[in-house]
Amino acid sequence: MPYPESFKDLISHFKRLPGVGQKTAERYAFSLLKQDQEVIDSFSKSLIKSYSSLKRCSQCGNITDQFLCNICSDNSRRQDLICVVESPQDVFAMERLNEYHGLYHVLHGLISTSKGVLPENLNLQQLTQRLSLIKEIIIATNFTLEGETTALYLTKLLGPYDLTISRLAHGLPMGGHLDYTDDLTLSKALEGRNKLR
Amino acid sequence: MPYPESFKDLISHFKRLPGVGQKTAERYAFSLLKQDQEVIDSFSKSLIKSYSSLKRCSQCGNITDQFLCNICSDNSRRQDLICVVESPQDVFAMERLNEYHGLYHVLHGLISTSKGVLPENLNLQQLTQRLSLIKEIIIATNFTLEGETTALYLTKLLGPYDLTISRLAHGLPMGGHLDYTDDLTLSKALEGRNKLR
Repeated sequence: MPYPESFKDLISHFKRLPGVGQKTAERYAFSLLKQDQEVIDSFSKSLIKSYSSLKRCSQCGNITDQFLCNICSDNSRRQDLICVVESPQDVFAMERLNEYHGLYHVLHGLISTSKGVLPENLNLQQLTQRLSLIKEIIIATNFTLEGETTALYLTKLLGPYDLTISRLAHGLPMGGHLDYTDDLTLSKALEGRNKLR
Repeated sequence: MPYPESFKDLISHFKRLPGVGQKTAERYAFSLLKQDQEVIDSFSKSLIKSYSSLKRCSQCGNITDQFLCNICSDNSRRQDLICVVESPQDVFAMERLNEYHGLYHVLHGLISTSKGVLPENLNLQQLTQRLSLIKEIIIATNFTLEGETTALYLTKLLGPYDLTISRLAHGLPMGGHLDYTDDLTLSKALEGRNKLR
């Protein structure tokens, strides 16, 4: 027996979420049927509302419901330091640290030959327009092929400007075991070793 | 930096889904921001529509958008056989087999002392009203404490009626290894052994 149409439709929407397959989507859909009417109404409204109210910060590209995001509009932050990240998720990951107090720039993607993402598809033009006051750019893209390609591209792009360009450190993760670490990470950890005395 | 309010609200809705924690809910919410407007609109509508159109089949308790579900209204199925399950999910699991051609009865729960679920909280009254034409009841509740308790209760409840009561077979799952099987399962598999010749 197939599911009723409207139920199939709901399942298909859940299947669009990242990492959600048929089984999980069915589980989500069934769980909603057990909820109260208000929960469903407010979920439905929340989807529309958050989608329509959230947009990209007109300076850095982070998500916000204002013209500028909370970070760009916070004058207590260092205005001469930009951390370049792939996505808004990365901004929130950095912010959880509570250790970085500069600005951000969100690329909304990484250069990828396999996915056909070119530099002109990224939020790059606005970055070069922000450089007048900037002293340092920290490139915090992932340590993947695409992240490294993008970092390389950025380094070249920013070459003509008079500013420091840095990259997050490579190395062993906290609690990492030498013998479980892949060779490349270990080699990078050795290369970037810190003097203790 | 905290998330914008409307985004936090969306995350909180995803967190209500079974097995979804903060990280996963954030991932789902971020993924929706990348979708097109139509996808969001149709997701939002689908929630409302499926919730309002789906109800319990007035005979067996399965989900349906009609008065009777597809199974109860299908006269080609055996009308003298009822398979009793905990939830509509279980109906669809059985139906995927394509081997069972009787009717169902969905209890919408299992008797549980720890969760305070009593027999009167289950969809039981309607079951006893359906018994006039029934020759066999298959109890297909889970093989958990709650499922077994409910099976025991059902057996007693149906005692006075002139019908066969059966329970799904216990035993090793397909591909199961003896030495990885827990003692209780193994003991049940031995107890229910089948004669080969």
